[in-house]
Amino acid sequence: MQFIEDLKWRYASKAMNGKKIDESKINNILESIILAPTSSGLQPFEILVVKNSELKEKIKPLAFNQSVITECSHLLVFAVWDNYTEERINHAFEVSHGIRGFNQEWDNYRKRLLEMYVVRPAQENFEHAARQAYIAFGFAIATAATERVDSTPIEGFNPEAVDALLELKEKGLRSVLLLPLGYRDEQKDWLVDLKKVRKPKAGFITDLD
Amino acid sequence: MQFIEDLKWRYASKAMNGKKIDESKINNILESIILAPTSSGLQPFEILVVKNSELKEKIKPLAFNQSVITECSHLLVFAVWDNYTEERINHAFEVSHGIRGFNQEWDNYRKRLLEMYVVRPAQENFEHAARQAYIAFGFAIATAATERVDSTPIEGFNPEAVDALLELKEKGLRSVLLLPLGYRDEQKDWLVDLKKVRKPKAGFITDLD
Repeated sequence: MQFIEDLKWRYASKAMNGKKIDESKINNILESIILAPTSSGLQPFEILVVKNSELKEKIKPLAFNQSVITECSHLLVFAVWDNYTEERINHAFEVSHGIRGFNQEWDNYRKRLLEMYVVRPAQENFEHAARQAYIAFGFAIATAATERVDSTPIEGFNPEAVDALLELKEKGLRSVLLLPLGYRDEQKDWLVDLKKVRKPKAGFITDLD
Repeated sequence: MQFIEDLKWRYASKAMNGKKIDESKINNILESIILAPTSSGLQPFEILVVKNSELKEKIKPLAFNQSVITECSHLLVFAVWDNYTEERINHAFEVSHGIRGFNQEWDNYRKRLLEMYVVRPAQENFEHAARQAYIAFGFAIATAATERVDSTPIEGFNPEAVDALLELKEKGLRSVLLLPLGYRDEQKDWLVDLKKVRKPKAGFITDLD
């Protein structure tokens, strides 16, 4: 199956060559993020697409000076809602009512969500929202692979510093993931020729027949 | 692009028709889960593949009686490590050394992970591990779509009850996600003909040129 071959082809590139990615490919990767499922359809995060070289240079030291931050073509920042608020939940349902027409049952569901989420601690809501971003992160990585675009999944960075740099706190957002997109530098990347490591299926996947 | 068309085709099926999925398709979905990237390559979760009808019947009331639990062909349970332990981290690196050969730098990295993770609160480690499972969850949903297999992403269930039923606690695992896989029942599914709802790109994706 071609898609599985694409997923085998991908790896977390440790060096990129600076080559620009066609906008059509970037648009497909972003489209897949939009299409990713999220709990109750809230889409509780935003994506920043960093192309600006100076901005990448400022982000690099906040991410252990990983070279791919500046060598990539486009750097995606996944910025998650810091909380579920009444305004955010209502807006998501307004979008839904606008597309599908008003539906009383769906509106009752909105009210139940408000009752459940708005009173919960912000940190608990943030953790739940962050998980949704990881599904979309998976979609983006997979789509990049189908486009033969390299990507480097990055959790290891200083989120508070990135939030301050990109003024995310003021927008009620918290950065959780970075995804440099670009093309591998086969000469410089120590990881490019190493075998992919995965546990054997036995012990990882269990059939309950 | 075909992959984007596949992602547009998918939705969270609310009724399935009981038709069995070919094993080759299931194997591709499971293979994509294995291939999903995880932090430090730890793969900190396991997958249970429930085909047994009686077991599905027992899980259904633990998941708000959602009919897809029993109407699906295969029910995947994503069961996450309850903690990062020395044994689990060492095992992941043994697998790596077995495939790539021993590497001193990589072994130093193992020691740093032990220092960082083993002392952290179990709940913090679990939350981090759970996020990794969501990337693989995204891969599984996407692969199912490319196979024209329907899936229903489910967070809404009683994890403690599922853990007890499947004896996960004893294995140091906690269920976080269910993924029924099967085929939509076009007559019974109220969601099948509704338009997909997504926010407009503006406000969701921001270019920083």
